[in-house]
Formats: sequence, C-alpha cells, structure tokens
Amino acid sequence: MIIVMGPNATKENIEGVQAKLEREGLRFHLSKGEDRTIVGVIGDKKKIANLEMNMMEGVEKTVRITEKYKLVSRDFHPADSVIDAGGVKIGGDRLVIMAGPCSVESLEQLREAARCVKEGGAQFLRGGAFKPRTSPYDFQGLGDEGLKMLRTVADEFGLKVITEVVDHDDIDLVGAYADVFQVGARNMQNFQMLKALGKARKPVLLKRGLSATISEWLNAAEYIMAGGNENVILCERGIRTYETFTRNTLDLSAVAAVKELSHLPVIVDPSHGTGRWQMVRPMARAAVAAGADGLIIEVHPHPEVALSDGDQSLKPKNFEAVMHEISQIANIMGKTL
Amino acid sequence: MIIVMGPNATKENIEGVQAKLEREGLRFHLSKGEDRTIVGVIGDKKKIANLEMNMMEGVEKTVRITEKYKLVSRDFHPADSVIDAGGVKIGGDRLVIMAGPCSVESLEQLREAARCVKEGGAQFLRGGAFKPRTSPYDFQGLGDEGLKMLRTVADEFGLKVITEVVDHDDIDLVGAYADVFQVGARNMQNFQMLKALGKARKPVLLKRGLSATISEWLNAAEYIMAGGNENVILCERGIRTYETFTRNTLDLSAVAAVKELSHLPVIVDPSHGTGRWQMVRPMARAAVAAGADGLIIEVHPHPEVALSDGDQSLKPKNFEAVMHEISQIANIMGKTL
Amino acid sequence: MIIVMGPNATKENIEGVQAKLEREGLRFHLSKGEDRTIVGVIGDKKKIANLEMNMMEGVEKTVRITEKYKLVSRDFHPADSVIDAGGVKIGGDRLVIMAGPCSVESLEQLREAARCVKEGGAQFLRGGAFKPRTSPYDFQGLGDEGLKMLRTVADEFGLKVITEVVDHDDIDLVGAYADVFQVGARNMQNFQMLKALGKARKPVLLKRGLSATISEWLNAAEYIMAGGNENVILCERGIRTYETFTRNTLDLSAVAAVKELSHLPVIVDPSHGTGRWQMVRPMARAAVAAGADGLIIEVHPHPEVALSDGDQSLKPKNFEAVMHEISQIANIMGKTL
Amino acid sequence: MIIVMGPNATKENIEGVQAKLEREGLRFHLSKGEDRTIVGVIGDKKKIANLEMNMMEGVEKTVRITEKYKLVSRDFHPADSVIDAGGVKIGGDRLVIMAGPCSVESLEQLREAARCVKEGGAQFLRGGAFKPRTSPYDFQGLGDEGLKMLRTVADEFGLKVITEVVDHDDIDLVGAYADVFQVGARNMQNFQMLKALGKARKPVLLKRGLSATISEWLNAAEYIMAGGNENVILCERGIRTYETFTRNTLDLSAVAAVKELSHLPVIVDPSHGTGRWQMVRPMARAAVAAGADGLIIEVHPHPEVALSDGDQSLKPKNFEAVMHEISQIANIMGKTL
Repeated sequence: MIIVMGPNATKENIEGVQAKLEREGLRFHLSKGEDRTIVGVIGDKKKIANLEMNMMEGVEKTVRITEKYKLVSRDFHPADSVIDAGGVKIGGDRLVIMAGPCSVESLEQLREAARCVKEGGAQFLRGGAFKPRTSPYDFQGLGDEGLKMLRTVADEFGLKVITEVVDHDDIDLVGAYADVFQVGARNMQNFQMLKALGKARKPVLLKRGLSATISEWLNAAEYIMAGGNENVILCERGIRTYETFTRNTLDLSAVAAVKELSHLPVIVDPSHGTGRWQMVRPMARAAVAAGADGLIIEVHPHPEVALSDGDQSLKPKNFEAVMHEISQIANIMGKTL
Repeated sequence: MIIVMGPNATKENIEGVQAKLEREGLRFHLSKGEDRTIVGVIGDKKKIANLEMNMMEGVEKTVRITEKYKLVSRDFHPADSVIDAGGVKIGGDRLVIMAGPCSVESLEQLREAARCVKEGGAQFLRGGAFKPRTSPYDFQGLGDEGLKMLRTVADEFGLKVITEVVDHDDIDLVGAYADVFQVGARNMQNFQMLKALGKARKPVLLKRGLSATISEWLNAAEYIMAGGNENVILCERGIRTYETFTRNTLDLSAVAAVKELSHLPVIVDPSHGTGRWQMVRPMARAAVAAGADGLIIEVHPHPEVALSDGDQSLKPKNFEAVMHEISQIANIMGKTL
Repeated sequence: MIIVMGPNATKENIEGVQAKLEREGLRFHLSKGEDRTIVGVIGDKKKIANLEMNMMEGVEKTVRITEKYKLVSRDFHPADSVIDAGGVKIGGDRLVIMAGPCSVESLEQLREAARCVKEGGAQFLRGGAFKPRTSPYDFQGLGDEGLKMLRTVADEFGLKVITEVVDHDDIDLVGAYADVFQVGARNMQNFQMLKALGKARKPVLLKRGLSATISEWLNAAEYIMAGGNENVILCERGIRTYETFTRNTLDLSAVAAVKELSHLPVIVDPSHGTGRWQMVRPMARAAVAAGADGLIIEVHPHPEVALSDGDQSLKPKNFEAVMHEISQIANIMGKTL
Repeated sequence: MIIVMGPNATKENIEGVQAKLEREGLRFHLSKGEDRTIVGVIGDKKKIANLEMNMMEGVEKTVRITEKYKLVSRDFHPADSVIDAGGVKIGGDRLVIMAGPCSVESLEQLREAARCVKEGGAQFLRGGAFKPRTSPYDFQGLGDEGLKMLRTVADEFGLKVITEVVDHDDIDLVGAYADVFQVGARNMQNFQMLKALGKARKPVLLKRGLSATISEWLNAAEYIMAGGNENVILCERGIRTYETFTRNTLDLSAVAAVKELSHLPVIVDPSHGTGRWQMVRPMARAAVAAGADGLIIEVHPHPEVALSDGDQSLKPKNFEAVMHEISQIANIMGKTL
C-alpha cells in the first residue's frame, strides 16, 4: 500500500502514521517529494490487505498495489488451467460450446433444442430450471422437474448439462443432475453460495456481475477456490452501461484481461451480453477471436413462444450458421471446435 | 405494450402479430403512420407482462408502458405508508436516524458507539454481524455473537436494532435479535431471500443494488410485499458510475423518484453512498432536504482502528454536528428529529 | 508517480527504469516488497506529469499521485474564491440564482419569464441564443437576435445575463451582451474554446461534461485559468449513468468534492440534472443543503409550448415555491438569498 | 410518438392533449387500456420530432418511436455505402488499416513508423498534429509543421493521410494535407465543427463520444451529411464505464448495431478503446470478426519515449503480428486486407 500524505500534513501526522504501521507489525519507506510525502508500506500481505489508513490525520489518500486474490491469479499459477467437466475439457485447445433454451419448458421443447445443439457440434446442453427473475410475477422455472428433463434429454443426445443454481440449499439437488453449476450474474456476490460451492465437487461457471469490476469478479472466484473447489470457469455476459440499444454491453476486453490476470478459462455469453438475437452471431465470432475458451448461447426451437428471453434466442438455423463461422475462427486461434 | 413494426414489415407480418395477440387473448389497436405501423396491445396486465414479441417477423421493437410491480406502486396505494419498526414510526413526520459502526467488533466498541448515537438523537443502533465482503480474506463479522451484543447494547441505551441478513437460513436467528432486517446492495436481487423475507414478520430495509435501476429496486420490494410482508423501507446507498473520487455516486434524485412512484418510505445512506467520511455531513443534509424519511450513518468511536469501512465512518463529534444541522433542515421539511 | 514492477521483473528491468528516470532528470526511491518492487519517482512536477512508463519492460502499472491542475486547486489557493460577475458576487455568503427559459424564443416570452425570475429573487436571467442540439433538425436558437433580447429584457428588470457560447468565434459577440459566459456540458473539453475564454475578460460558468470525472472537469477549468482568466464558476448538471428514469443523475457529492479540491464556486443545475420538472424542487433544496453557491434553473411561463426542454422547465408558481424553500435552507447554511 | 396518460388523467386532460395535437396539425389514435389511455401520434415526422408533451396535465410519459436522423439510416439508404478516401475504398470488401503514432513528433519518428505501417499492409498513415489533451500542460501537438511532415512521409511511402481536426477554423488547413478528417471523441458533439465539415469535400471519420449513445453518434453523423458531405465513416473507440482496468470499454456490439441501423462504414480503434498495448491484438482480431470495415491502430517505433499515449501503442513487431492474424480473419469475413 502507498499512503499519500496531504500537502498540509505535519511532522506529527507522519509520525502518527508510522506509529500505527509499527503497531501493526509493518515496515515502510518514506519518500519526501516537492509538496507531498509518500509512505510505502511493506510486509505481510494479509495485514496490508486489511489496513485502513484514510482516517488518520494528514492522510490524503491511499493506493493499493496488489489485489487480494491469490489462488485465481496468474502470478500464483502461471499456466492455463484446464478444467474437466464431466469428461469435457474446458480451457484447452478445444472450443467449448454450451447451448440450449433460456428456461426448460417441456421435454418436447428440450429435445428439439438438444437435437439442434448436438448437430451444431456443442458439448453442453444449457437450460434454466431455477430462474432468477426481476419481477415476482414472471415465470420462475420448473424446478426439480426441469432438472430431470435436462439430464434425461442431455443423456439421450450425449450432451453434458450446465444449469443455474440460485440457492446454497439446492447445491446437492442441482449437483445430482448437472455436470457444471452455473452462478448467475445476480449471484456473483452471493457469498454464502460461493462458499458452499467451494465445498462442491463439480465445476462452477461464474458469470460476471451486472456491474462487477474484473477485480471483484476474480475475488468472487477466489471465494470458491479458497473453499477447496479449483474448478472455476469465468463467464463474461455483458455489463451495465448507459447504452440502451443493447440490453447489456458485452465487454470482450474482459476476456483479454482475465487471460492476463488469471489462469482460469473464460467463456462468453453473447445472448445475455447483447439481449438481441441479431447480435449473437457477430459477437460470437468476436468472442472467439478475442481468445475465449468457449461460448454459451441461447437456442430455442421456437423463440417466439419462449417463456423467457425469447428476444435473445437463436433459431436452429441461425445457430448452425454461428457454429460454422466460429469453427473457422477457432482454427485461426489454434483451437478446434 | 406498444409494438413498432419495421419500415419493411409486410401485411403478412402484421397479420402474424395480430394472430399471436389473439391467441394470447389480447386486444389491440393498429395505428398506421407515415413509415411504420404501431400496434397498441390492450388487455390483461399479467398476460401483457409476459408477452415477448421482438422475435416475430417484421417487429422492430417493443415498448412496455406499465411497470410489473403493483403493491409497491403509488397507483395502488396513494397515501404514504408509515411503517412501525419496534414501536418507531418510519415514513411519518419524524425523521428516523439509524447509526452505529459498520461491523460489530466488541461490546466495548458498541457501547461507546451507542452512547454517541443515543445522545445524538438516533432511534436505531446499526451494526453488521454478518458482513458480505469482496474478498474471502476480509473480516466476515462476528455472527451470532455480534447479534447478541447488538441487542444487549441497544437495550441498555433504549435503542432499536437494525442489522443485515445475508442468507435466508439466518432469518429466524437475525429476527430474534433485530427490529428491522437490512438487505444489503449485493443481495437486492437475492430472490430466494426476498421471498423468505416476505414471510417474516418484521420490517425489511431494502438497499438499492450497486447498479439497480429504480424499476428493478421497486420490483425487488414487490417480491417481499407479494410474499405478505408489507413493511418495506427503501434505502438509497449510492450507485456505481465511472467517477472514482467517491466510492459510489449517491443518487438523491432517487429519493424524489421513489416518492413519486411508490408509497414506501425511503432512507439514505450517505456513508456507503460516498465512501468518504468528509462527505457524509453535506450529503446527510442534502438527503433530508431532498425529502428522505431518514438516514443510516456509520459512526465509530475510533474509525482509525475499525475492522471494516473506517474510511466512511464518522467520529462522535462529527456525528453530533451532522445531527444538529439535519434537525434544522428537517424542520423546514415539516419533520422533527 | 509510483511505478509498480511486475512479480517477474528482472534486475535489468529495474535498472532500465532507473536509467530512464535519470535521463529525464528525476530522482527515485526503491522499495522492495515481498513480491513486487515499487519505484517512487520524485522531482519536477511537470516532468513527472508527462512521464510515460507503462511501456517499459517489467512495469506492471503506474499510479499518479498528484493531479495535473494547479491554479484551480485548493492547495494553491486555500481560501474560497469570490467572483464578481457584473457586480454580483458568486461564491460568497449570498446564494446566486440564475433562472429563465432554456431557449430565447421571443421578447414576450422572455419578459414574462424575467418578471417571474426577478420577483422570485434571482439575480441572473438565463436563456440560450445558441443551442447545441443532438439533431440538426432541432431548433438551434435565435442567435444574435436572441442575445439582444436577453440584454434588453435583463436590463428592463435589473437582472444580469448568462448565456451559452458554443464557438470561440462568438466570444466577442456573446461577451458584448452577457455578464457571464456559459460553457455547456458538450463543450467542456472544447479546448480551443477554453483557451480563447482564458483571454476573455468576463467570468465563465463551466458545466461538467456528460461523463466527465471531477478531475477532468477541474483540468478543463485549468485551461481557462492558465490562459489568464481567473473567474471560473463550476456547474454540476448531472452525469450520464445507466438509470433511465431521470435524464441524467445529478451528482451532488460533486459539490462537496469540488469544495474540497478547489477554491472555485460551484453552482447546481437541477433542471438539466434531472430532466423532469417534478424533481427540480427537491433537488434544488438538496443542492443548497449540500453547499452549492447557487442554482441555475429553467423557468418558462408556458413550458408546454417551449421550443426546447419544456419537460424540465418550471412554471412561475413552482419557481416561487422553490425560491421560498431554498431561502430557508440557505439560512441554515449561513447564506442569504 | 406515443403519449401515455397517467392513471388519474381526467377527460379534460385527454381533451387538452388532443387539442394541442390538433393545433400542431397532427393526427392521433386513442387506445383506452385497463388503467391508462395511450395516445398514438401520427403525421409529419419533423413536427413530431419537435413535439414536447410531458408538461401537459395528466401526461405520465412519452415514448419516441422513430429516430430523428434520416440520411445516415439504413431505412433511407438500404445498401452499404462505400466511401472513396484519396482513392482507397472504405466500406467495401477490403479491410482498411490506418496506423501510426498518436502524435507526430519528428520526421524521423514518422518515417520509422510509416515504414512499419506500409510493410504491415496498411493504407493510411495516422498521426496527430493537433492534440486535444485533458491538461493544458500536456503536449498539444506540432500543429502545421506536423501536418506537413505527415503528408511528406505518407507520400514517400505511398500512404494516405488521416489526422484530427479540432477546430472549424483549421478545416482548410488540415484539408490541404489530409485525405480524411478525423473528428475525435471529445468533439463528436462540437456541432459548429460538424456543420463546417458538412461543407468540406473530403471524407470525415467520426469517432464515437466518450459516453455517446449509438443514437447520438448517428445524429452527429447526420449533421455532417445534412450539410452536404455524404462521406462519413464511423469509428468505435471505447466508451466510458465503471471498469478501471481498461481506459475505456471497447463496445464491439456497436459495430453490429451500426451495421443494422446505418449504411455507413465503421472502423474500430482498439488502441484508444483499451488504453493498453497488451489488449490491442485480441481486440483487433475481435473487431474484424464482429464485422468492422477496418481498424485504426497506434504504432510507434519506440513507444517508451512517445510524447502521448505510449501505453497503448504497438511496437512494429507486434503490429506485424496483428496484421498477420487479422488478414486471416478478414478472409473468413469475405474481405481481403
């Protein structure tokens, strides 16, 4: 941590800061500039992480130098992590595609979607059984029954299952049917659930919060890893900005940022990331070109009758077109579909 | 809902839209403009709320006219709600002040804070026993023990207790000690917990999410009210913007907005809303002048040794000064402290 | 400036950084922490301001400690500045009110507005003769003719004139009629115009840009002061956020921030800051309570026929009510209207 | 325009709205829903564009259905525009690359950069002679001398010139040396300059403002086209969000949006769009995959000594690598480099 003393800080103020650092068992360097004194704090990282100095008399501001997360960082684990999810490798040289409807609605709907998903070359069937919805009056998902349908249909088509968990009490239940737990954007800082997922034995796909910084997102991943579950997959799904033409602003530079800061694989969701089916295709291509390890895409056989998020779901023939294009871009990136 | 057909929409496209609306049991008006046809949808509000039309051929966009929430809206309940929280009225003509440390740390700390809070004229002691923290390595609160301390000290000083609940499993536990449940910004859309709080019998203070729109915030309140708990207090605590000088941007216009759209009382948190103790005083004054029903303020006897958020905590003498000023502004607003 | 070396920085990388600093005539302190070396740079502020180090091998990031602005800063000029604008003092113990229609439309409209403005107790008549508009097809203002009307009517009622200048070529023209130049949000970083206003001899009210940080805003003021014109008044008018209920999010904490960082007076515009006439009254009160030196408010005798921004204009009787309330809050703040 | 009457609107309120519309020469449809009456306004688009109804008694809100821009819209001009810039076609089936240093510093620097730019396959040399800078103390560019250097060096290497114009007074001067005028983000709504560029006879590359919506950006382009200059190229360069890891958030979905809404070509600037040289390569690839018509990239022979924005400039060997990768992605997109 760097402590910047204000231009009017007195000798006593600086001594006060030094005394506090000594009490905390930390060392420091003083650097007297033209009009400000800077105090560089050295020592135990955990002590520094919890240090609060802005209230001390004479302190103008403090600057943190290092992030609090450790297990997720590339400093700590320089090589890319490859995560095994029900036998499918995520983060290696194969692009992973997860596709399916926003919500599980019926066996028939799911089978139609799964056929298309499988034929397109995806490895995972996605679909929500528990749906977090803005309004209490919106469709909240089929629950247990939806989970069973997902597993049944995925098995019929030789697909893996990824589905959202919205409550730590449901982890065992969801884990009985899914190969990967999905944590939605609204739950990225549901720390109770993150801690519980740290004890789970299946991989977790952690979506970035609606307005989470990259640092907060990696700290959320740290909760899961610190609990003992190293199998975390990050998922960029668009952030909230002032722009209203798209539902969210897909932040593809976050893919490059995560690759720099962390060893974890990163997946992109161009469906929620834009909220418009017309944009899924160009953003899917762009995500792969940016270096994503995979995509999660909404596909619905009949989006015009979908019970949720029809606006951003692809029809089967559009999904096919997407898969064709991204397989070519994947090749340039040294990956295969 | 208004459906805007694109400039190239065909007769068949428009008939397709009409047919779908008829199937859904909804009525409509067609309005043919110079280059676009507009379809106004009329009928059952719940059916319209769940209608998705953007996927229909020829549709350019749709505009929702009414909000999905009902119980929280002023249309539904024109008079201001006054909520009884352990005998203290919130939303009436008395300004309600909730104050105390960010985290409960010890009986001694709490007693010192409570004395100052009581002397300043506050009615509630606040303090976190369960703390949602960005990093798993930060102090997570004293838990049960903290709750007991809160109740003990509040009773000693004749104060009410407000404290955060972070998990639906803890509702009974927290409810045994608190007069008001606080839902933090990160849990504003923790719908499982909101549903459970809808069954609780004590009031809920619902903080606005870090990047929640006013509409999303009111829909979150609707979850609690729809569950049967009508005692919801809203709390503006700053939103996430691009500005970095303050930790958050306190949105005082949200106070006016909530007063227009809803009958629920609204409280302002100038401590989290700015993240800087220097700004708590002017923002506390401004909040009362904007029409807030109360304030929740961090006060710590020794913020320089606080285990969390010392940067935004007031020292006792600053709290006194704030209370003095806001009591004068409250009078202008027709309220008493 | 603080230079943070990455965890894998080599001895050669650190020597490279040192060598560059020496070539630039700057001094430094090395501080070796557990896993990172920090280089604190000391010396001539202008040299440091222009230093770019992120491209050097081994550098992880750099942190700037001091702002580039100087003349606007409170470090440089500790006492509040009071600016004389046509004989009216801005920044002292009188609250300054500038009011009038968004656009000048006719002598008749202006006279009706001016009467109300004067009776309410305002000192300045505001009104746009040159209007920057999002669309080329919107009303662009009456130009020269509008300026003349403003001066004529203001003189009739004993008011001062503030009006927007949108082009450096118009500075002499506008200066012939106005007492204060207004720089609109869209022109906050029109550096050519700021430089030209630095040579002008009348005060400048500088609105904050739509998404300007406080630091960028103060640097824009520095352009004017560095040119020789010390009479700068800052104006907070709302920033762009994700919220859509209001046109902008009025950032009242910016008032407190500016008071901390600078000696310049600050005015608040609750009309543009919210975009809704219903919110002008509470936000005007809140602005004065936050410590603003004045307000600029849109008043239109008949907002329903206004050629621009009728949505945010007050009718005369609402303006009166605002003036009554803020005069009481001003008293608490130690100011008079 | 759709006018939504509030739930308490009276018969008189609705008649008042109707009367006003009739006075304006506009027609309307009434649509009475369960609890609200909706008024759909039909008639002359310009009249509707300037209609303000929110101030009318009983009106809850208004919704605009059509955008104000016309010449830039795909409705008006369904085919993609291809723009001739000094003989190079922009918007057709060749990817256009503009590259060079942020600022022109010397002939030597420019020649080194131009050699690399040419060898990499770019068609345009970019470089700033007039630099808009946040602080008045930052390097402001070489001015006229810089323009001459640009032209000289570009001619030596058979490149075209693109450079920024920051003032309408400089249009003739800049036009004497440049093949394309660049309008920077800070000047996107410098309407005086946009109008003057509407009279110019060379193409204009219009960068998106720091927090401009897509609609505002297209309206700014409309200013230029409405003035008579049809040769507008749009440039996405990152928007301002809460994320601080990157300088801006590059919004690649804006590329897809512009392609849907407009016929104008769109270029992406991954250098300013991220502010970090490490991210230029992945974002350049992603931009081409998203459907951009070209890129504008900062290349500096020695970024560690650059006078501006060294942090985001590529070294020659990195530029080469980018060009190699994007040529492959261009092929998939049906384009050649």
